[in-house]
Parts: sequence; C-alpha cells; structure tokens
Amino acid sequence: MKKITLSVIPGDGVGKEIMPHALRVLDAVAEVHGGLTFEKVEYPWSCEYYLEHGEMMPEDGLVQLTESDAVFLGAVGNPQLVPDHVSLWGLLIAIRRGFQQSLNIRHAKQIRGIDPPIKHANQFDLLVVRENSEGEYSEVGGRIHQGDDEVVVQNAIFTKKATKRAIDYAFQLAATRGKRVTSATKSNGIVFSMPFWDNVFQEVGKQYPDIEQQSVHIDALTAFLVTKPAEFDVIVASNLFGDILTDVSAAIMGSIGIGPAANLNVEGTYPSMFEPVHGSAPDIVGKGMANPIGQIWTGKMMLDHFGEEELGKTLLDIVEDVTEAGIKTPDIGGRATTGEVADAIIERVKSLT
Amino acid sequence: MKKITLSVIPGDGVGKEIMPHALRVLDAVAEVHGGLTFEKVEYPWSCEYYLEHGEMMPEDGLVQLTESDAVFLGAVGNPQLVPDHVSLWGLLIAIRRGFQQSLNIRHAKQIRGIDPPIKHANQFDLLVVRENSEGEYSEVGGRIHQGDDEVVVQNAIFTKKATKRAIDYAFQLAATRGKRVTSATKSNGIVFSMPFWDNVFQEVGKQYPDIEQQSVHIDALTAFLVTKPAEFDVIVASNLFGDILTDVSAAIMGSIGIGPAANLNVEGTYPSMFEPVHGSAPDIVGKGMANPIGQIWTGKMMLDHFGEEELGKTLLDIVEDVTEAGIKTPDIGGRATTGEVADAIIERVKSLT
Ligand SMILES: CC(C)[C@H](C(=O)O)[C@@H](O)C(=O)O
Ligand SMILES: CC(C)[C@H](C(=O)O)[C@@H](O)C(=O)O
Repeated sequence: MKKITLSVIPGDGVGKEIMPHALRVLDAVAEVHGGLTFEKVEYPWSCEYYLEHGEMMPEDGLVQLTESDAVFLGAVGNPQLVPDHVSLWGLLIAIRRGFQQSLNIRHAKQIRGIDPPIKHANQFDLLVVRENSEGEYSEVGGRIHQGDDEVVVQNAIFTKKATKRAIDYAFQLAATRGKRVTSATKSNGIVFSMPFWDNVFQEVGKQYPDIEQQSVHIDALTAFLVTKPAEFDVIVASNLFGDILTDVSAAIMGSIGIGPAANLNVEGTYPSMFEPVHGSAPDIVGKGMANPIGQIWTGKMMLDHFGEEELGKTLLDIVEDVTEAGIKTPDIGGRATTGEVADAIIERVKSLT
Repeated sequence: MKKITLSVIPGDGVGKEIMPHALRVLDAVAEVHGGLTFEKVEYPWSCEYYLEHGEMMPEDGLVQLTESDAVFLGAVGNPQLVPDHVSLWGLLIAIRRGFQQSLNIRHAKQIRGIDPPIKHANQFDLLVVRENSEGEYSEVGGRIHQGDDEVVVQNAIFTKKATKRAIDYAFQLAATRGKRVTSATKSNGIVFSMPFWDNVFQEVGKQYPDIEQQSVHIDALTAFLVTKPAEFDVIVASNLFGDILTDVSAAIMGSIGIGPAANLNVEGTYPSMFEPVHGSAPDIVGKGMANPIGQIWTGKMMLDHFGEEELGKTLLDIVEDVTEAGIKTPDIGGRATTGEVADAIIERVKSLT
C-alpha cells in the first residue's frame, strides 16, 4: 500500500469550500487505484486564525508540515480581515520560501466543454515554469523620507543558482513535450536582472540543442497568450512575470477557477505544495458557486508528482467529460454547484473499477 | 496660422515605412483645418545610425530636439544590428527621461471593422496612464561574482512625486470620461514599492470622491483585460505594469499595430513625444504590410495635445470608416498595403472640405 501523507490547509474563502470536495475526489481516485491511500492532517491556518492568534500559523508551523509528503492548500487571503501582504507572506509565501519550493509549475490547456474568452484558443496546451523563490518578490528594500519627499527602493534579487534551476527544469520538461521553450524577458527596459536572465537562458539552452528556444519580451508575450497561445509549449519566467502569465493562461482557458499549480521543492528536501492558481474569491463565498476544478486539477498534478501519471491523466480526462456534459459552475457558464461538479467527477471515477 | 514644429524620428524597421504616410495624413488634416501647419525636421537616428556613429543620436541630440513643439517617433530597435538595451536606452528611453516625459498615455477601444481576438470586446474604451520616468525601469543595480555564484540586484525606485503625478493625472482624466480609476498593484507579493503605490493611490483618491476607485493586482487585472475590458475606464500603472497592460490592451483591439501612445511632459518644460505602442517589427519590413494606423492614431493624440480635439476625433472616426470599408493591412485581416490604407484615410480627410 502506497501511503501519501498530506498536510491540508483549506485557508480562506472559497479555499474552505472547495477543499472537502477535492479531498473526496482524491479519496475516490485512491480507492479505484487500490494500492494507494491518502492520510490527511488538516490545519486551520487562515485569516480567521490570524484574528485569533495574531499570526497566520504557529511559530512551529513549518515544522509541523515537514512530516508530510506534500502540502495541499486551498487559497489564502481575506483583505477585509488581514492585509494581503501580511496573510500571504505569513502563510503561502512563508511555505514556498521555507520549504524551498523554488519552482511553480502551472498548466493551461483548452478544456472540452468550456468556452474560452479568446477566439484562437484551439489546441493550446502549455506549461509555465515560474521561478518561485526570489526575483521581484523580495523583502529587500525600504522607504525613506516622509510626505512629498518619500522615496522607496524595491530590490529584485536574481541568483545564478535559482535562475539556472528554473530554466534547466523548463528545458527538461520541454524535452518530454513539444520541444519548445520560450523565455519571458524584458531586457530592453530592465537593464540588470533581465540581461542576466537572458544570459543564463542562452547558456543553459546550449545544452539542449534539440529544443527550440526563444526569448520574448513580457509585454509581447502576454499579448501573444491572447492572440496565439497554441504557439507555446513550455514558458519559463521570473517570479513576477510567471505570476502574470499564469493568470492570463488560466483566464484564456475560460476561468481563473480552473488553473492548477505545483510549488516544487525539486531537491526533495522538504514537501512540495499544491495549490490552485485562483485566490480566495471572497465575493462568491457562501453561494456554493466556487469552481472545484482548480483544486481537483491541482490534485492531478500532485498525483503526477507521486508517480501516478496514468491516474492523473485519467482524472483530468474525467474532469473534461464532466464539463463536456455541461455539469459546470457559473463561472464557466453552467448552473451546477461546487458539490454537484465534484459528485459528477467522483461518480465517473468510481465507475472506472 | 498655428504652426506646430515637429521633430520627426522614423527610427528603425516599420517606423521608417509608416512615418511618411502618417505625415501625409497630418498634412492633409492641417490643410483641411486651414489655420494649422506642421513644420518638420527629420532625424535619421536609428540602429543604422548607431553602426555608423557609435551612438544612437549625437551627443547634443536632446538639445536639437528641444527647439520643437513635439517629437513624433516611429519605432526604435533592431536586435540584429544593436542590442535592444543599447538602442532603446540610447534613443527612446533617453528622450523619455531627458525630456521628463513622466507619463505615457495609451488609448485602446474597439475599432469598427476590426475583428478583435477576444469574445467580449464590445464597447470597451480605456486609457492607461503609465508612470514613465522611474519604477522598475532603472539603471540602479548591479552584478556581483561570476559563474555559478553570480548574484544580480535590480532596483526599482519609486518617488512620491512621480507616483502622485501619475495617479493624479489618471483621476483628472477619469473626471472627463467614465469616472472610474483602476490602480494596478501587486502589494501582496512586492512588499515595499507596491504597498507604497497603494498608499499614494488612496491618498490622492480622497481628493476625488466622485470618482470610483479600486486597486487590482496586476496578474488579475491583465486577465480581466481579456475577459471584461469594458469594465475599465482609466487604469493607472507603474512603468512595467503599464508596459504589459498596454500591449495586451492593444492586442485585444485586434492588432498591436494600431495602439497609439503619448509620452507627456506634463509641466511643459520640454517637448512631449508621440510614438505608437508597436515596435520596429523587423520580420515584416520591406513588404508594404506595416499597419500605419498606430502611427496615425498617435498623430491624433498629438492633435488632442495641441488643443485640436475636434479634428482628432474626426480623424479617428475616419480611420474607423476606412477599416469598416475593409481597407486594412494583413495584421487586421485585410489585403491593403501601408500606402493604400493611408491613401484611403487622406481621401476621406480631404473630402471634409
Ligand atoms: C521598447 C521598450 C523599452 C518599451 C518599453 O517597455 O517601454 C516598449 O515596450 C514600450 O512599451 O514603449
Ligand atoms: C497571492 C499572491 C502572493 C500569489 C503570487 O503572486 O505568487 C498569487 O498571485 C499566485 O500567483 O500564487
């Protein structure tokens, strides 16, 4: 029996609504597999937890999570209760950094039964490899002077090690897929970090002569995701650029609510974390409208991560069968509730046996 | 007679192809006006100029331009000849900075006769006010160590003065339009500059109680331009965020080749510069395919700037008549050449008399 232990953090908002359903789906998958089981420990860390305890997670929070094979997270943030930079740096980003989850991988493809908002969505299937540990997201910098004289310095820090790791991973992924890597740059405007990024891309690229390689400026690249997404296979990007590209790549699928993500600790020194692209969406909480597909597809990426690619592929196929059958939440044009979508998926998973 | 003196810099690639046609259009407009004339001095500054002279413009280049009322620029850059960061910082960005063109204003709206790549483009009409003098585009930073130990620090510098100026201008513009300002932020990930940006937005916003105001994270905002562009009126953004948003807002019109831009010196101490959103597009040079609309619409923004809003509005209307009549370059689904599009516009301008 293969036992995968999960630290489950539903978090805030819709995170709490979709998580139980995604876990039901994973359990159904494990049951069908026969030789697989998920053991879960749930943690209530969230903005509500913060209001009670003055912190997003206990001081030994990371230590508690270390025991598990992976962290399965819903969504973090509720700006009505806690400022975003406090809640996110106190939990989501704290885990990404603390567990050296240096890569964030996000998948986007056209899903059967979902009408995309762009006209040229046909057949696109792309992965974004986002550097997840440094770059534009840094706590280095500061503010000086007051009032009209205030000046703020924000540092972005890029290391060779982290840049190379992200780019190398992108090439490795592309080798198993469409054999094309596109690097997001902005070396024409940002004159230290981005020319460096380009250098590393060229250097690493030399080791993969069979992979097509190109650099595209982030402004144009974001636009191309809208006009010709099928031209891309694997995109590698810095932390901020990856953040922007993956919201757009989720949107062109038809809803931010379906995009999956993996925060990978590639060295295997700490658990990886799996969390959907979407946020906590406070505006739709309590209505049963939250789309569970982002969390379920994220579960599929977790299955892949633990070597269950076959099962992962089957699960995503079933998700598409369900959307194709019209069992969809309102964000993708349906009238089903969160639970009804999950039920339909579970029913089809169970019928596999 | 109102005389407007223009420094004309066609630049590189398609810049050189569209500029003569845009100037013909402006002359036709002036003729119809009766009391208006454009006096032009053309400068050959470009990547080819660089190959000959070792610099993108002469040392006293900015001094030469100072004499004119405005700079009318085509496109800069030809990475085959000169690295982008050299050509752009040596000319385009040098003028933006040297002439304290602290705001970059870009307009996007649905154009009659152009089929947009997104399904929900109906009726959108938005302006992006981009901070144009500092922020993420800064020459402050550096590289240390070699090989696998290399570390790069890239500074983004935000001042109260420049941030406030951009945000205040956005509110002023919104007051004359749809009365809604959206601020692009990323304060959940970028923890010094973006919370500061949000503070200034709130502070300035208090002076405009009649204007609807919201902050949206750049990742979500970029996605919203694809899914619901009509919800936006005026967007205010930092240098990098504005860059990304305006390429996307040009793309959702149907082509990057039609987006117009103004680089404004709001204090009136130096000439402003008018240049389209698109770049030099080396791949289509020499084919007569370059879309002149970006440059012509940019000319319209220049007319607005010099108080000729009526005429500007008429010119944009005529451009839309021409696209609606199907006289379009290939990027927007037609078969006309650069010159044919310009001719059709000029013909309609002349028929106004
Ligand atoms: C060419 C480049 C430096 C420039 C910018 O990023 O400002 C361009 O993309 C633009 O938007 O005008
Ligand atoms: C919430 C925020 C800090 C986060 C990020 O920017 O990384 C989110 O947008 C994401 O993409 O996971």
